[in-house]
Amino acid sequence: MQKFLDENFLLSNSTAVRLYHEFAAKMPVYDYHCHIDPKEIYEDRQFCNLTELWLEGDHYKWRLMRSNGIPEEYITGSRPDREKFQKFAETLPRAIGNPMYHWCHLELKNYFGYTGILNADTAQQVWDLTCSKLKDSNYTARSLIRRSNVAMIGTTDDPCSDLKYHKLLKETEFETKICPSFRPDLYLNPHKPGFCDAMEHLEQVSEKKLDTVQDVAKALSQRMEYFNQQGCRAADHGLDYVMYRTMPEAQLNRAFRSARAGRTITVEEQEAYQTFLLLHCGREYHRLGWVMQLHFSCARNPNSRMMAALGPDSGFDCMTVTQSCQPLFLLMDRWEQERSLPKTILYSLNPADNQWLDTLIGAFQGPEIRGKIQHGSAWWFNDHKIGMQEQLSSLASLGILGNFVGMLTDSRSFLSYARHEYFRRILCNLIGTWMENGEYPLDLKTAGALIQDICAENAKKYFNL
Amino acid sequence: MQKFLDENFLLSNSTAVRLYHEFAAKMPVYDYHCHIDPKEIYEDRQFCNLTELWLEGDHYKWRLMRSNGIPEEYITGSRPDREKFQKFAETLPRAIGNPMYHWCHLELKNYFGYTGILNADTAQQVWDLTCSKLKDSNYTARSLIRRSNVAMIGTTDDPCSDLKYHKLLKETEFETKICPSFRPDLYLNPHKPGFCDAMEHLEQVSEKKLDTVQDVAKALSQRMEYFNQQGCRAADHGLDYVMYRTMPEAQLNRAFRSARAGRTITVEEQEAYQTFLLLHCGREYHRLGWVMQLHFSCARNPNSRMMAALGPDSGFDCMTVTQSCQPLFLLMDRWEQERSLPKTILYSLNPADNQWLDTLIGAFQGPEIRGKIQHGSAWWFNDHKIGMQEQLSSLASLGILGNFVGMLTDSRSFLSYARHEYFRRILCNLIGTWMENGEYPLDLKTAGALIQDICAENAKKYFNL
Amino acid sequence: MQKFLDENFLLSNSTAVRLYHEFAAKMPVYDYHCHIDPKEIYEDRQFCNLTELWLEGDHYKWRLMRSNGIPEEYITGSRPDREKFQKFAETLPRAIGNPMYHWCHLELKNYFGYTGILNADTAQQVWDLTCSKLKDSNYTARSLIRRSNVAMIGTTDDPCSDLKYHKLLKETEFETKICPSFRPDLYLNPHKPGFCDAMEHLEQVSEKKLDTVQDVAKALSQRMEYFNQQGCRAADHGLDYVMYRTMPEAQLNRAFRSARAGRTITVEEQEAYQTFLLLHCGREYHRLGWVMQLHFSCARNPNSRMMAALGPDSGFDCMTVTQSCQPLFLLMDRWEQERSLPKTILYSLNPADNQWLDTLIGAFQGPEIRGKIQHGSAWWFNDHKIGMQEQLSSLASLGILGNFVGMLTDSRSFLSYARHEYFRRILCNLIGTWMENGEYPLDLKTAGALIQDICAENAKKYFNL
Repeated sequence: MQKFLDENFLLSNSTAVRLYHEFAAKMPVYDYHCHIDPKEIYEDRQFCNLTELWLEGDHYKWRLMRSNGIPEEYITGSRPDREKFQKFAETLPRAIGNPMYHWCHLELKNYFGYTGILNADTAQQVWDLTCSKLKDSNYTARSLIRRSNVAMIGTTDDPCSDLKYHKLLKETEFETKICPSFRPDLYLNPHKPGFCDAMEHLEQVSEKKLDTVQDVAKALSQRMEYFNQQGCRAADHGLDYVMYRTMPEAQLNRAFRSARAGRTITVEEQEAYQTFLLLHCGREYHRLGWVMQLHFSCARNPNSRMMAALGPDSGFDCMTVTQSCQPLFLLMDRWEQERSLPKTILYSLNPADNQWLDTLIGAFQGPEIRGKIQHGSAWWFNDHKIGMQEQLSSLASLGILGNFVGMLTDSRSFLSYARHEYFRRILCNLIGTWMENGEYPLDLKTAGALIQDICAENAKKYFNL
Repeated sequence: MQKFLDENFLLSNSTAVRLYHEFAAKMPVYDYHCHIDPKEIYEDRQFCNLTELWLEGDHYKWRLMRSNGIPEEYITGSRPDREKFQKFAETLPRAIGNPMYHWCHLELKNYFGYTGILNADTAQQVWDLTCSKLKDSNYTARSLIRRSNVAMIGTTDDPCSDLKYHKLLKETEFETKICPSFRPDLYLNPHKPGFCDAMEHLEQVSEKKLDTVQDVAKALSQRMEYFNQQGCRAADHGLDYVMYRTMPEAQLNRAFRSARAGRTITVEEQEAYQTFLLLHCGREYHRLGWVMQLHFSCARNPNSRMMAALGPDSGFDCMTVTQSCQPLFLLMDRWEQERSLPKTILYSLNPADNQWLDTLIGAFQGPEIRGKIQHGSAWWFNDHKIGMQEQLSSLASLGILGNFVGMLTDSRSFLSYARHEYFRRILCNLIGTWMENGEYPLDLKTAGALIQDICAENAKKYFNL
Repeated sequence: MQKFLDENFLLSNSTAVRLYHEFAAKMPVYDYHCHIDPKEIYEDRQFCNLTELWLEGDHYKWRLMRSNGIPEEYITGSRPDREKFQKFAETLPRAIGNPMYHWCHLELKNYFGYTGILNADTAQQVWDLTCSKLKDSNYTARSLIRRSNVAMIGTTDDPCSDLKYHKLLKETEFETKICPSFRPDLYLNPHKPGFCDAMEHLEQVSEKKLDTVQDVAKALSQRMEYFNQQGCRAADHGLDYVMYRTMPEAQLNRAFRSARAGRTITVEEQEAYQTFLLLHCGREYHRLGWVMQLHFSCARNPNSRMMAALGPDSGFDCMTVTQSCQPLFLLMDRWEQERSLPKTILYSLNPADNQWLDTLIGAFQGPEIRGKIQHGSAWWFNDHKIGMQEQLSSLASLGILGNFVGMLTDSRSFLSYARHEYFRRILCNLIGTWMENGEYPLDLKTAGALIQDICAENAKKYFNL
């Protein structure tokens, strides 16, 4: 019987224990995709209490609280921080089997030395302990990053951003590399609110008039050049679903001008616009040697009442059923035909897609680098023990696990590096179990090197770091 | 090595054993959705033999026998009961890994004290033993319910039913609460046989002329009032698939009148009619504080030859691929916008839907009650060890397992309460294993209370009992 | 801790060990679907080296090498055999968790007595050892088949084939039965390259003018008669997806004539043509007592650049998302209505289809034979430990595992019989684990007989051997 969250947490046998402690644990973290605000790193933000650190922006936790029947005033509303924390502490013990249960306790243990259990009764004790520690300089944004052995952070940035804080950080003595990532979603969604403003912004920043889709493409390319100069190595597209639709350029430009004028365009026009620009972006990423990340099968804001009340990214997004894999095949094929397929990481929000994705990546590999096309780490809702095991097992069964670029936090929080530990333990347990069961030779050196590749080395090479 | 079906059946470690025997086993059963005939309870039916009890109406068993190449005459045909039983006994040992193998042996053990193995050789012995015991007053419908510690049974009733046996049962001394459930499928399927008769029946019972869909809505509401007076707490919709389609009411009424006249209507008209009434029903359930159950992704009677020969519910239904989750989002959103979303339990017949369903429920929770929107227990074809484990694990990973309303039998048989035991053992094993592996604190009191919530307390509150 | 690939490989408990060694291991192999060239059996081909044997035609291995960034010249290109082998040996250790890792080492152990690990360092040693052994008469095609205890091989043959080598083999003293299988894909795909040539070929061979779809049907029937005389017991259809579409015959014949003239036809026409002939073929298989195998949910050649360079079957095919199960229901229903449904094995390439397929087969069984409709063994990309476990578990949970016709290699290689061993170990481990856990009685005789049925006896009966 294993003690809760002890040093061998999630490691079920002695080979897994050795793989984790001797090989995985010490590797630096390449957190190549997250939503941390570079301003907070530059300003080395300090936090007053755990509600600020945990509950201010974490829609995973909000969602759990809502599932526990907690009124919104304690979640995103105006109740005092201490009361919000209490409600969260009451919720957590019921979330047995949820990764949040593990993440919270890992964070309390790793960063605050708290090894008890958070619940309604211990909430005050945890509050007091963490409030007192947070005053310490060990708990600023940069200290937390440094203590987490983070070699690189890939932020998520608007193409029009001046990357002011990335520039300032370059001039600052800070050992972790903070790289911007190019996330042009706003400019690729002519059917969503904010498109007209985004286009105006892009016109200003690029100092180009945007009358045609070619103009938009050129303006985006110009921003990519700027991002590239600032150390950007990756782009990121959040697609509700993958589309592939072509349309004569004249017709497409008419649709574009309609959208710019705030008029509704057809689904066909929207998809053709998205396809045109996505193809363009991919070509450019290929030219620049960037990594393209495509995230898809996500239903954004299906609860329109709560969307109206709280806006996007408030914990109401969902997985969707992937209706067809055909458009993704067509996209990949088009780039491949043009010999402009960039390094690509594919993430579906629906884990039922794991297997076909793993076969798809196998059909578009290339000799430029090992594992040129990747199936991304278990994303968002799948970022839990079963989700990770399934992504890793599917990738191993259908491709080459040893070439996987591994974990990312996708998080807004400075404590989320515990998720890399979580991933590494699960990875080491999977491989250690295979070794103990006689499914891989008991050669710690070989297996340990593979694990170190997956934890850090593969990402380092893949992102040209 | 564990003996087959011993007291620690399905419990793989000592924590699981304690959780089951000390916490789960003694909890009363809230069997909130089943297909038991209240007449048989009222009349306290006695059974002559195991064929009557097991094979008369159980299409799970029929299906297995057909898969074993047994001719139909031994299944639904006219062969003597003893011969039918023999054919089933021959089939069972081949169904290794099938829940039927476990259920049958659990039932033989729990209700008849038989601890041997049923097969072709032992069939006569089992037949004799059970025939002799069934004569006993311990084996009437009510005795079986009483012995199974059943606190509540939710039957499945036609909206036009006078609920005669529910009324009679109220006046009877019987400690188990027998509640009707409102199942209006017949009235929501204008494209299926029986619609015209159903409408006529509804006209008679409601004493309303049904000229418009509003009339139908009002008549159904009237029946809900009646059901509510008789203790109904839940409704149940069997949808082949979830649809969401709106249509101007005048057009809808024209379609309705066509359907009433026995004419074929379009798929669009059918879906608009279903959507209109489903939305109406949901609003009313919300007003009444009822629970709405939606069952979907089911192919009814794909084998039309056997449908013609044996009618529906004969063991030929199948899972379908869920083509889109969009209609369900739209339905839920519509109710949520109107602030009329009832407590809802969602069941998909396709287990590939587990994960997206678990994210969907998280987007429509509310402060009225913990776990207002539920992902229903592994339904029908999924009601086996792996199916339950996957439903529980998915719910735990993506939501709050501690708020789950748990198991139901969905059965026509008085012996099926063994399935609650089956569920509880699987639940305790899952949680016990997490505790032994250090994934949850070894706190039996907290975990035991959660388990008791899932086994009984949550359902008791959820159904206002 | 278990040694890599020892005698109890994949057997995690003593019951599994006994089931495998005492019951499964000795059973003959019925390899009822593979892509071995009968000419190579007849000519008793000898191989020069492991590159010939392993890398000449195995697109599984090519795919792995591409995923490892190996340039095409070392895969399908002109580099020397020894260099190609080296690149493969470098790739293999990174493919931890991939079935290829196990298959290769099983083949080296079983056929060459090599018990070391293949990697970049040992490649020369393995090369030398295998090259020297391959000179031996124990390593010819027939010797390898004989040593593998293969009772029957089902090849895959073009309907126009004269089956010359099958005939020659009949006159040869060789104890393994080599049966042709009827694979009419070319003739059922009017939208794919090669259709016109195929039709011309069929005209010549059948000595019939093919002016209508009825003519094609008759010509195919004539070929079936010929195949039947040569011992054919099975047919095989590779469908990208299952379709069901009907069309008036006159219209269909117009479409057919367009296709024959090399003109593009519509998707509707294509699907109607396919449906017409598939229905016809199924009826004929039923009449002949053959087994119909349907393979579907496969994306052929999505990478058009590599298709242009290397042609089909080069390792670029993928799984697809199955958009609907409706067409398969309709097909099955049509045959069932006509009482012409043959024995059928269904294989989906997407494992997300396992469960609904297992319910579908349960709706179309018949009394002709136990398990008339089968869910085929984990196919192609799913042919790994997890894939097999999931197919077996799903089938067991939803149907009768004991009636399963079991494993096939689907391979082009004479060493692939190791995959039957792989399957049998996984099967025995699954059942042995159930027995040790108390989920099935500890009755080795009964379980052992079921296992022997699944390994050989069921297939023997199913294919009338």
